[in-house]
Amino acid sequence: MKASDQPEFEPASRIEAAEISSAYVRPPQQSRSLAAYKRITSAARDILIENGLDGFALQEVAARAGVSNGALQYRFASKERLLKTVITISLEDVVEKERDMHHDLRKTCASIGEFMPAYISRYWQIMAAFHPIFSSSIDVISGDAYLSALGRSIGMRNEVMAKNTMLSYFSHPTEALIGSVDAVYHLVFSYILREIHFPSGDPGSADVLRRTRALAEMCEARLTSI
Amino acid sequence: MKASDQPEFEPASRIEAAEISSAYVRPPQQSRSLAAYKRITSAARDILIENGLDGFALQEVAARAGVSNGALQYRFASKERLLKTVITISLEDVVEKERDMHHDLRKTCASIGEFMPAYISRYWQIMAAFHPIFSSSIDVISGDAYLSALGRSIGMRNEVMAKNTMLSYFSHPTEALIGSVDAVYHLVFSYILREIHFPSGDPGSADVLRRTRALAEMCEARLTSI
Repeated sequence: MKASDQPEFEPASRIEAAEISSAYVRPPQQSRSLAAYKRITSAARDILIENGLDGFALQEVAARAGVSNGALQYRFASKERLLKTVITISLEDVVEKERDMHHDLRKTCASIGEFMPAYISRYWQIMAAFHPIFSSSIDVISGDAYLSALGRSIGMRNEVMAKNTMLSYFSHPTEALIGSVDAVYHLVFSYILREIHFPSGDPGSADVLRRTRALAEMCEARLTSI
Repeated sequence: MKASDQPEFEPASRIEAAEISSAYVRPPQQSRSLAAYKRITSAARDILIENGLDGFALQEVAARAGVSNGALQYRFASKERLLKTVITISLEDVVEKERDMHHDLRKTCASIGEFMPAYISRYWQIMAAFHPIFSSSIDVISGDAYLSALGRSIGMRNEVMAKNTMLSYFSHPTEALIGSVDAVYHLVFSYILREIHFPSGDPGSADVLRRTRALAEMCEARLTSI
């Protein structure tokens, strides 16, 4: 793989230092404050998913989190900061889940034939879990330099991890194999993205399961035919 | 193929009769009126693509089409009717292009190996040409029963045509082949949709061309391996 195909994951902390301070509210150290922070961000996340951006109201967040309006205001200052904090937490959750997934899959899948269907299924779950936040907040993310950069870096990071895991099943990474790994990665990503945004059928239906199995088999066939 | 996999294309005229009358403005018969109608709808299409829905103003359409505000008002009554007429014309244009594509491809591609890359490329062009209208008017389409039905019927129609063309390259349509044709169709559709909405790179770049070629080869391999 050429160096240009393997972008380094830009650590969140580096972007954070430059740009995040005005929006993201860090978790407090003290345990009682931390508990309230978690209740608030979790309630805010649920309300964002349920109501969308237009129906996202601080009063409802405070009521559901069991804190006063004043305490919420004191901690998060504005609706915008609370919103961006929730989105940041959700994006960081995606990073963590992807890392765990690759860790598990490398341990449990003995061959590329076992890896492909497991990867498609696990990665689909991660993207589906994030989708409600993403679709509610796409305008907020695209209008915020830090959140856009974080989103892009998560995408690049997943691409690199997925390609490296696929390559780990082969002893000899030829140029042809690297090209196929690239095509396979993008095909899987396109398939999942489409099924989440414009489903071809119910996710658990026989039709969709058959299509997903065919995709995994086509990917395996491509990678092992080289 | 089971009958349920082959939805009949619901003719536009049938839906039209029930629901279209209040929105769509039909082309006039008289040639001078028809010329003005075409100038207006073409200018409206360009302005919708350039400015999006928020910047779509009747005065600008009239000016660009070279008709008076009064004449535009007389023909189309409201911005909404003009907009829905433009969207209907664009959707009907997609139908016509898809029909022509399948007609050409069946004549010019002697094998499934020739058909796959040609189909991906031609269908991508059709979807890319429609994309600016679609992304400007997705809320109008989803809020209008006729336009939603027309959009769905175009999707079903393309699916049936594409599957039938693929099957025409094989003498014996087994259940396994039919399943693979279905998976291949959805994979190609997902891939094109993703490259149009969230491009993995510049459409003419070496990376994207290599991915597209790999997809065509994977589809051919799947269909001929059965």
